[in-house]
Amino acid sequence: MKTSIDRRDFIKTGMAAGVAVALGPKILSAAPEKEKKIRIGIIGIGLRGTGHLEGLLQRGDVTVPAVCDIDPERFPIAQDLIVKAGQKKADVYQGSETAYKKLLGRGDLDGVLIAAPWLWHFPMALDAMKTGVPVATEVAGAASVQECWDLVEAHETTGTPFMFLENVCYRRDVMAVLNMIRQNLFGELIHCRCGYQHDLREVKFQPGAEFGEKGVHEARWRTEQAVKRNGDLYPSHGAGPVAMVLGINRGNRFVSLTSTATKSRGLHNYIVDHGGENHPNAKIAFALGDVVTTLIRCANGESVLVTHDTNLPRPYSLGFYVHGTRGIWNHDGDRIYFEGRSPEAHVWEKDEAYLRQYDHPLWKKHESKAEGAGHGGMDFFVLNAFVECLKRKQPFPIDVYDAAAWKCITPLSEHSIAEGGEPQEFPDFTRGTWIRRTPVFALGEEY
Amino acid sequence: MKTSIDRRDFIKTGMAAGVAVALGPKILSAAPEKEKKIRIGIIGIGLRGTGHLEGLLQRGDVTVPAVCDIDPERFPIAQDLIVKAGQKKADVYQGSETAYKKLLGRGDLDGVLIAAPWLWHFPMALDAMKTGVPVATEVAGAASVQECWDLVEAHETTGTPFMFLENVCYRRDVMAVLNMIRQNLFGELIHCRCGYQHDLREVKFQPGAEFGEKGVHEARWRTEQAVKRNGDLYPSHGAGPVAMVLGINRGNRFVSLTSTATKSRGLHNYIVDHGGENHPNAKIAFALGDVVTTLIRCANGESVLVTHDTNLPRPYSLGFYVHGTRGIWNHDGDRIYFEGRSPEAHVWEKDEAYLRQYDHPLWKKHESKAEGAGHGGMDFFVLNAFVECLKRKQPFPIDVYDAAAWKCITPLSEHSIAEGGEPQEFPDFTRGTWIRRTPVFALGEEY
Repeated sequence: MKTSIDRRDFIKTGMAAGVAVALGPKILSAAPEKEKKIRIGIIGIGLRGTGHLEGLLQRGDVTVPAVCDIDPERFPIAQDLIVKAGQKKADVYQGSETAYKKLLGRGDLDGVLIAAPWLWHFPMALDAMKTGVPVATEVAGAASVQECWDLVEAHETTGTPFMFLENVCYRRDVMAVLNMIRQNLFGELIHCRCGYQHDLREVKFQPGAEFGEKGVHEARWRTEQAVKRNGDLYPSHGAGPVAMVLGINRGNRFVSLTSTATKSRGLHNYIVDHGGENHPNAKIAFALGDVVTTLIRCANGESVLVTHDTNLPRPYSLGFYVHGTRGIWNHDGDRIYFEGRSPEAHVWEKDEAYLRQYDHPLWKKHESKAEGAGHGGMDFFVLNAFVECLKRKQPFPIDVYDAAAWKCITPLSEHSIAEGGEPQEFPDFTRGTWIRRTPVFALGEEY
Repeated sequence: MKTSIDRRDFIKTGMAAGVAVALGPKILSAAPEKEKKIRIGIIGIGLRGTGHLEGLLQRGDVTVPAVCDIDPERFPIAQDLIVKAGQKKADVYQGSETAYKKLLGRGDLDGVLIAAPWLWHFPMALDAMKTGVPVATEVAGAASVQECWDLVEAHETTGTPFMFLENVCYRRDVMAVLNMIRQNLFGELIHCRCGYQHDLREVKFQPGAEFGEKGVHEARWRTEQAVKRNGDLYPSHGAGPVAMVLGINRGNRFVSLTSTATKSRGLHNYIVDHGGENHPNAKIAFALGDVVTTLIRCANGESVLVTHDTNLPRPYSLGFYVHGTRGIWNHDGDRIYFEGRSPEAHVWEKDEAYLRQYDHPLWKKHESKAEGAGHGGMDFFVLNAFVECLKRKQPFPIDVYDAAAWKCITPLSEHSIAEGGEPQEFPDFTRGTWIRRTPVFALGEEY
């Protein structure tokens, strides 16, 4: 207990969210503690957790002394990576669904990273905060609005820092556009678009059109969400980066949304195509509409269109789109236009030269380290932010209020759809402090 | 009166909407009446009406014996065109806002085309139907839902055919995609997108940032809509073609919508940029949000995103996008993808080859005539449909029920925005007959 109390004291003086308000960009370049390696435990070493393990091991400043999973087959893979990185084998926590609590209780961890299936993010994060271990969770929508409040309250009660690992906030083109916005190329922002438009049918099903008990990896637990829920199940890859652009929770906030879902055809068709019409899964009536479209109103008068489109054939696109009073960027088509700057009025330019010219300082500095990291380098940056903040005792750039605002899009969109499109109000998880909270995301070149 | 009663009888037996239900594609190739030229009057010969006049005069089968406008300066331009086309000067109706009624009462017109300012479409169309003159109006949103009902009731009561001149229904790429849909390349349709994304600031303002009394052309009457109304003011260029694709009013219908508007900045900024911050117009608080985003739910489970974006700098795009269970087309980026047909899974193809291969029979047949016609040839087709239906005594392919459903997006979106995004139900203007009405749009190669 001593360790975790000490940690909580340090956290409260250095990293609690309230302190962030008073901190300007300058502190971001404060020197990290020398020598000491950051000790990070990982709960969930499936495909995603193993990816993060590799990312952490590639750094020279992190050790991974503890890993936890319910599937014993994952440990040899993890240990092999750890040993090859020149580190001691990790302690293993396994055998029950609550084994992770023992990992949290070790007392020597500087942070814990949660990459378990969606439904575990919440209880694990809560327990981590209660135990005083700074925690980062993978992304997913929330099960309920209350869950978001509970995360916020756990953070505020315990003072334990929470980070949401939304890697797309660090996508190179999105960060270049953020850089352009900060240099006022777009004027005042008016409307943004984004979404998760990703044909996941081969992820949601095993060969033979199986999932759930007969599935592995995400097919084991992710697909059942589509059986039972109709809403934007995975909003933050789009809404997160756009929230950073719009200063959500930091001078702006999400006020309300409406959601519309189409009929559900894609998953059923896939089962019939790959398992035949007599396959037992062909009887399932999936709740999830194939395309869920959500419109968010913001306190400063902008609107955001968020799309969830994962059941139909389509090329991948997060559909980023930023429209301001002086310019517009449409990632679909790789196009950009600035009034008075683009050579021809009313005519798009290719965005490539702008994205290069306004490459974000973070990417300029860390490009070589990001190369080869997961998801086009984004994973490097999100882990880098987690680790560097732990080292520097600085607030996380994607915090519990961000997580709550983005995750709660899921239950709010479910409610709106269930009520025929009725608008749903976002809770103000910041309890009014969004008015004076200032941006902290990607202000410098360090993390 | 005799003439118009005769006409109404012919209309009732040949052209009334109810008859359309029983008519298959075959009748569309019925031979037109020989010899007789179709006599069309035009109300409103501003820029748009003059464009239509030119289009009609280029045909060999139409005379324009009557034109009407409130602005005497427009007549010499029109007469010059008419004389150059080898026709007699038209009779002129002018001098008062109700002069058009005299044009309608001539008794010798086969049809009338209305291209007056938006607010005149409704009373003029109503009077035309009451007088028994088949009428086509230019496009615009409705002032109210009741106005849409009144149009429908005037049509049903009088039996006079009504056509809505939505030229974008005939856009070449949109028609090619319609052709692909009818050949089942897209599978079952799930989600469509469209909109009017057109920087109209130079249309809404004269040099010196003037409009209204000090404006000419559309600046004289269109801009005031943006002063007073907040909604999708101009929905049909997007929603019309998509409605054809989805079979709206013909086996499907628009059920409800939600709308979201952003803050209004673009028009004010334009005034300040071009007239200075002390310009009297800089004091105007424009009601119209810069980007209005509307989501429509359809009876068959599809959703449609409609965007209205006319106040900000941006390249023109109607943003067409069609997503089905087997394929997807995104005009932004000129991209298309069909599962199992596109060479690489999850990878877009350029749409060009498909658009050429599936060029609609109408375009194949009339390409040379359409060349040089307004709006990339679309204007040829919409006028051609009007004239050919008059000649053949066939139902118009874009009728009063289509007009009502598309135009009423405007007041419904206003209501939704005013109520914070509350969903609004579409009236069923077909009174339930959408279930058995079958498509008539662009079934053949004639019109």
